[in-house]
Amino acid sequence: MKKIINNPENYLKEMLEGIYIAHQDQVTCVNDDLQCYVTKNKTPGKVGISTGGGSGHLPLFLGYVGDGMLDGCAVGDVFQSPSAEQMFEITKDIDQGAGVLYIYGNYNGDIFNFDMATEMADFEENIQVTTVLGADDVASAGPSAPGEKSTRRGVAGIFFVYKCAGAAAAKMYDLETVTRIAQKAADNVRTMGVALSACVVPRVGKAGFSIEENEMEIGMGIHGETGIRRGQLESADQITEEMMQQILADLPYVEGDEVAVLVNGLGATPLDEQYIVTRKIDAILKEKGIKAYRYYVGEYATALEMSGVSISLLKVDEELKPLIDYPVNTPFFKQM
Amino acid sequence: MKKIINNPENYLKEMLEGIYIAHQDQVTCVNDDLQCYVTKNKTPGKVGISTGGGSGHLPLFLGYVGDGMLDGCAVGDVFQSPSAEQMFEITKDIDQGAGVLYIYGNYNGDIFNFDMATEMADFEENIQVTTVLGADDVASAGPSAPGEKSTRRGVAGIFFVYKCAGAAAAKMYDLETVTRIAQKAADNVRTMGVALSACVVPRVGKAGFSIEENEMEIGMGIHGETGIRRGQLESADQITEEMMQQILADLPYVEGDEVAVLVNGLGATPLDEQYIVTRKIDAILKEKGIKAYRYYVGEYATALEMSGVSISLLKVDEELKPLIDYPVNTPFFKQM
Repeated sequence: MKKIINNPENYLKEMLEGIYIAHQDQVTCVNDDLQCYVTKNKTPGKVGISTGGGSGHLPLFLGYVGDGMLDGCAVGDVFQSPSAEQMFEITKDIDQGAGVLYIYGNYNGDIFNFDMATEMADFEENIQVTTVLGADDVASAGPSAPGEKSTRRGVAGIFFVYKCAGAAAAKMYDLETVTRIAQKAADNVRTMGVALSACVVPRVGKAGFSIEENEMEIGMGIHGETGIRRGQLESADQITEEMMQQILADLPYVEGDEVAVLVNGLGATPLDEQYIVTRKIDAILKEKGIKAYRYYVGEYATALEMSGVSISLLKVDEELKPLIDYPVNTPFFKQM
Repeated sequence: MKKIINNPENYLKEMLEGIYIAHQDQVTCVNDDLQCYVTKNKTPGKVGISTGGGSGHLPLFLGYVGDGMLDGCAVGDVFQSPSAEQMFEITKDIDQGAGVLYIYGNYNGDIFNFDMATEMADFEENIQVTTVLGADDVASAGPSAPGEKSTRRGVAGIFFVYKCAGAAAAKMYDLETVTRIAQKAADNVRTMGVALSACVVPRVGKAGFSIEENEMEIGMGIHGETGIRRGQLESADQITEEMMQQILADLPYVEGDEVAVLVNGLGATPLDEQYIVTRKIDAILKEKGIKAYRYYVGEYATALEMSGVSISLLKVDEELKPLIDYPVNTPFFKQM
């Protein structure tokens, strides 16, 4: 295991201490629990938005807490859910009198704990809580039938749900509207990724799987979940073509649509390669008559030191576009 | 070689095409030469600032072109200098009537070409050009004698030179003042890095060196230049302690000083680890009675997919602090 760390047992605590030191002007924790991460900047009457999930994905999840996006994040240990109590503590802290929206990825541990936190908020504090799940990973399961819960995992596309919901809350929309907008973003985003190498959970000390030197895995999840196809490493254009085909067909995204595009590095893949992928995405979109409204390129949702990229598309309309354009200022993500 | 690329011969071109597509509202190129990268946002009477250098270090160098920082960047192929002609074309484009400052790293190829571009700007266009070199890598050579040119390499600390000079130019200071401030920043910044793994130049296809699974190299350069010590991988706290000792002793930084701190990931090292290092830096600074004025943590100057981190300190005073605080908006780096 090749990491710049101390005792793996202290990984989460020391990482969080570093974050609170570096960004003390913007964020703090609740009740001295480092895992209850909240913004210092409250606005009375604003809908509070919280997220949560395991560590190992920086800047996801906590990196999106700040002006124009989220108010709090329950931080779990690497690839583990935070507790319901932590979610509840954050909920109390970030409720600014207009209720709280939970946005998180579609993973069982997180669902169980956030559901319990919802009940605690309702019974103990009379705080109204709504929930929107990120379930954008096209590779993880087929589409859900109408009215049924998605079994797809949430991956990088949750960034767009945060972005739209956060802007809606900053515009002082009410809980019902912010929730509707978050759900609309979640319904209109699709993601697919490719992994070229594994990652190592610090406490475990070795990779739980491996990918051969000449191989890639299309659709691998951000914790190393099995994808849809393992095969020989192909060119950037071929990989992009395959992922875009699956994404475009899924919603589907069609001629005349406008999309916001997120090209996301999984950790070890240089920005250079992410832009080589961006170039090919743009060519494909042009060919299909789909307009790229805005590009985001960089590391937005990682899997420790995994190498690979993911592509997310969000179909935007006249309601979502100004929310995508709305300024953001968090320690990890800024948009002017 | 495990990369998401097409023909390695097209690596630079395709990466740049992706960048111009994603950020077409902010940047463009001169004379259809993709390697002549300039901001779209000109301000008459403002000192122009240009940089340049080899690719493979994103967001360095071109990522700092934008409002509040640089005006142009000559982009070389991976780890290679751009040409004097490209530097000259950019100089003509970004001269806004107040002269141009070149800020670049202390590498022979870059020096040769920028010197030639300076002569061309003077003789052919009568544009006044000044130069400040980044030579912040403590590990690469001893300190230079007074009046002598430094033989140290430029690494991540050049970010602070860009930051201060860019803010000074945005405040409409004249060329002499912007140059003096850039030199002051360069004189007060020191960097040291540690590498845990090698990187692969796409055209070459394999690493030019290797670091064993249980090893690290303190002081390795951003092209894989030999460092000061190769040894067994140590804990984050030990590594940070060793690097900080060398940095602090060099200027030296002493009790009562204030410093801006840059903790920089070299490519494959997760942000988590960079914050674990940040935590230890802060403890060391507190112990020494040195005040951390501001922290920057993330990937600011990489070496493709190399894993490792570097630490840069800039000693700040009442002149540099407001320049550090000045807002920036480039496609790759934003500060509010």
